[in-house]
Order: sequence, then structure tokens, then C-alpha cells
Amino acid sequence: MINVLYAATSPTWEEYEAPLRRAFDAAGLPVTLSRDIAPEQVDYIVYAPKSDLTDFTPYTNTKAVLNLWAGVEGIVGNQTLTQPLCRMVDHGLERGMIEWVTGHTLRHHLDIDYFLARQSGSWEPFVPPLAQDRPVTVLGLGELGRACAVTLSQLGFPVTGWSRTQKQIDGLTCLSGPDGLEQALSTAQILILLLPLTAETTDLLDSTRLAQLPKGACILNPGRGPLIVDAALIAALDSGQIARATLDVFRQEPLPPEHPFWAHPQVTVCPHIASETRASTAAEVIAENIRRGEAGEDLLFRVDRTRGY
Amino acid sequence: MINVLYAATSPTWEEYEAPLRRAFDAAGLPVTLSRDIAPEQVDYIVYAPKSDLTDFTPYTNTKAVLNLWAGVEGIVGNQTLTQPLCRMVDHGLERGMIEWVTGHTLRHHLDIDYFLARQSGSWEPFVPPLAQDRPVTVLGLGELGRACAVTLSQLGFPVTGWSRTQKQIDGLTCLSGPDGLEQALSTAQILILLLPLTAETTDLLDSTRLAQLPKGACILNPGRGPLIVDAALIAALDSGQIARATLDVFRQEPLPPEHPFWAHPQVTVCPHIASETRASTAAEVIAENIRRGEAGEDLLFRVDRTRGY
Repeated sequence: MINVLYAATSPTWEEYEAPLRRAFDAAGLPVTLSRDIAPEQVDYIVYAPKSDLTDFTPYTNTKAVLNLWAGVEGIVGNQTLTQPLCRMVDHGLERGMIEWVTGHTLRHHLDIDYFLARQSGSWEPFVPPLAQDRPVTVLGLGELGRACAVTLSQLGFPVTGWSRTQKQIDGLTCLSGPDGLEQALSTAQILILLLPLTAETTDLLDSTRLAQLPKGACILNPGRGPLIVDAALIAALDSGQIARATLDVFRQEPLPPEHPFWAHPQVTVCPHIASETRASTAAEVIAENIRRGEAGEDLLFRVDRTRGY
Repeated sequence: MINVLYAATSPTWEEYEAPLRRAFDAAGLPVTLSRDIAPEQVDYIVYAPKSDLTDFTPYTNTKAVLNLWAGVEGIVGNQTLTQPLCRMVDHGLERGMIEWVTGHTLRHHLDIDYFLARQSGSWEPFVPPLAQDRPVTVLGLGELGRACAVTLSQLGFPVTGWSRTQKQIDGLTCLSGPDGLEQALSTAQILILLLPLTAETTDLLDSTRLAQLPKGACILNPGRGPLIVDAALIAALDSGQIARATLDVFRQEPLPPEHPFWAHPQVTVCPHIASETRASTAAEVIAENIRRGEAGEDLLFRVDRTRGY
């Protein structure tokens, strides 16, 4: 029997117990999972920096500490931790982003909002164009931007990707630099923001750049709140330059109740959900690492404590 | 110069002129396109059964009649037609169906309606499961059903497909027969109807079969209206057994204004738009056939008049 201690207060035991048990069963691992195991009997610790456990000294037989968060800055400096430490790299986070971006892109493409608002009894056939006639631009071609851009391209959208340095990705038109940005914006009937937040990307989408989009464009922001100048976006929505914006990230989160985005009829507010660690996929990573540990194989995503990540 | 006569009243000249010109340009074809060309000078006729042209005798130099409709029953028996006849097989129809089904599946999966209805200023993170944890069932594995099922599977959904005769399709769980149907329904958090209409499929989704779905399932019907017993669906929506239904086809079309589907808060009515011939892609087929005709190659989708299709 493998003894696995759950030592996290956030995420909660209630959220993770069942997914972990399912993942251990699926991996064929005979695990005793509990929040209460005598330290010297613990084989693995499922951990998050929000935890009552801060002294790892008594865990003399523990083979690894498996973090539920991608960030390990809250634990990596702990001097009592001598056991191997692994961070979480959850493929669910990328899958969730792809699903959110694809779903909201198709929502705007098919004008689903129009059909939802329309229960009038009046039959007015309105056929949206095909994806092949709906140019989409993704700003940012990091791991998430690239994955979303490729998925949309596979669904038939002509996708332009823009990044600071020039990339080459099959099926995409890749642009870079200031001139590339203006060109990337000029064709974007749907614009998706997946840039990292840096000094150069802060306030990127200001009134000048919003005006470079085709009239009636839709904007999705699952990236970072400060990429957009809020007041410029609201002005562009009010003038009709931008038809709709679906925002998942904000300069201040939670978005304050008095912020005009909430009530704006052309804005959809999502509470920072496009990219979340999912219990089901994170549990699979934990189970795989315990399987590896038991089989004497290298652990996934092991932290190099000399580098700090 | 190639002389192409547009001889259709539906679809209209206004709808097709620009897409045809674009497609001819893209194919590098030097075409004169007009609704008025002396019969003996016409090289190709773009045709639809709704047309003023019924006597093909004077078109002595015409190399082919290119139908804009898939169905040719309105022209194939015309005794004056001795020229080769081609029907329309528009890949835009399949692409449109895939986009509609994928968009509405993701809409229900991500619960987009919830976020659209919610402008309250209250930040309540609600993270939907991943597609991998959202089983979807497609009833009907013809060309369209298969294409939609495969696309959803590629997006990560576990997809069960059901058909009258057993099929085997990579990535799908394929079921058939009456027992298979009960099993296919039992796991379907989202159910997609793409069956042909036959004596066996009429009224297929009655109160018994609706009760076999998991509680809170969503239904998409882009297939045929009579697959569903309307009153049974409304009862299942009202009881909460079915959470939402998005319907594109109906027993009577246009759906009568007094039909309860229109005003039902859990029903989205689309006016039979999931699968439409698109001018842009149909024009590409016409251009390709003229290119083939000029190059002396076999025409696409040529009708065998001894079989009648």
C-alpha cells in the first residue's frame, strides 16, 4: 500500500479527494489517501503552498512532494524540505483555454447571441459566413496562443498570429513587429489576446489600435487585463467600431461591481475562468508521478532548487 | 473568353454574382458572366430548377449545365437537355454543419448562456469541466454525423456515435441497434441528432427515450424536425430532465409563431440554417467545373441521366 498525504488547504480536500482516488484507480495504484498519516509512514505528499504543513523534517521516508500549483515560490525556499519537489504542469489548463477560446470564437462567428435574444416567433433565415471567410487574429504565440491558433485554423478559420519575434507555424500567417501588428489588426474580424504582460504590451489595445481593427470586430481577452485600455474599449463599443468584447481578465480582479464592463450590453464578463488548473487533470499528473516514483523512473516537472523553479 | 450564362431565379443573381466572379478570378478563368447571352454563344450555364430557362435546344455550343442545387429532379427529366449536367456538392454545407454543431456544443459545454445572462457585478468563479469529462452522443453517422462526431472528438469530447448499422470510426465509441441506443442515450450530457428521417426514426425522441438521458442533458437538433416529439421535449424541459434544447429544424417550417418552442426560456430556435449551400463555396465548385471543362478533364458530380441522379 502506498501512503499519500493530502497537505493543502487550497485547493480543498473536498475538491481533490474524488479526482485523486479516480486517478489512482485508473493508474492501478494501491493508495491510501488521507489528510492524517503518521509522518514517517508517508510515501508521497500532495502539497500546495497554502498548507498547515511547513516542517518537512519528520517525513523521513517520503519519496516526493507533489505540488498542486505551477508556482513553487511559496515552498522552494523551505530549508526543511530535502525531498524531491515537483511542480504542477496541468494539460487541463491548456485544454481549458483552447475550449474557452474556441467556444467564444464560434459564438461570435455564428452570432449565437443574436439567436439567444430572439424568441419573437419571427422566422428570418440569417446564415453566417463559413469560418473560411472569417479572418481571426491571435496576438501572442506562446504555448497557449499557438495552441488556440492551431485549433481555430483546423476548424477552418484563416488565422493570423502575431508575436514580438517572428515565428513560423504550419497553417498560420505569422507576423511580428510594429508593422506586422497593424496588418494583423487590420484583418481581424475576431481578435484574441494571449500576450504576456510586459512594459511593451501594457495598454497595447488603445484607441489607435482599436481603430485599426475592421469595423464590427469582436474581441476576446483571456490573456491579461492591462493589455486593454478600458475606457478606449468602451468608447469603441459605443461607437460600433467594436461589436462585442468577451473578457476573462481585468486590471482589477474581482472586477469591481461599479465597473462599466458589467452592465455594458456588448460586453460579456467571465470571472477569470478560461485557464484554471482542473482537479481531474491535475490528479492524473499526481498519479503519474507516483507511478513513476514507485517504478524508479524520473519524476515529471521536478524542481531544480538551485534555479528555484 | 468563356461565356457563362446565369440562368436561375433562386438563388438570385444578387447573391451569386460576386462570389462567382471571385471564384473565376481565383481560378484564373477569363469569364464573361451575364444573365443575357445569345444562346449559341453560351459555353456554360449556371442553373437552378427555379429558372425561366426550360428549353435547352438553342444552346448548341454549351459544354455543360452546372446546377446550383444538390437535387436535380426538377431538371433531369427535361427532354431538351442533351448537354452534360452536374449537380452541386457543396463542401460548405458540411463545413457549416460542423461549425454550427461545434459552436452550440461548446456553448452548452461552457454554459455560455449563464455568462451572457449575468451582468450583476457579482464575481462568482464557476469553472466548467473539461471537454474530456463531458460525454457527447451523436445519433446518426452519415456523412454529416460522422464529420461532426470526429471534430468534437478532436476537441477532446468523449464521443459516442449511434447508427442503425454498426460502424467503426477512429476515436469514437460506435454503437448500434436498440440496446446500443439506450446505452448511447444514457451517457449523453449533450445529444446531437443527425439521423435521416425514416419510418423508424420518426418520433424517436419520445418521453421514454428522453428519460434515458442523464438529468440535465442538452439537445441539439440540426437533423430533422420529426425526430423529436415536441410535447415530450417540452415536458422534459419543464421537469428539468432536459436543461436546454437548441433546434434548427421543425415539423413545420417556418415554425409557427404560436408554437411553444419560440418563447420557452430553455429553447433556442434557429431558422434552419445549420446546413445551407453557401454562395462562396458553391461558386468554387462551379469555377472548378468550368476549369475542368476547358481543360478537357472529367466534370465533378456529373449526373447519370439513366439513373436520374
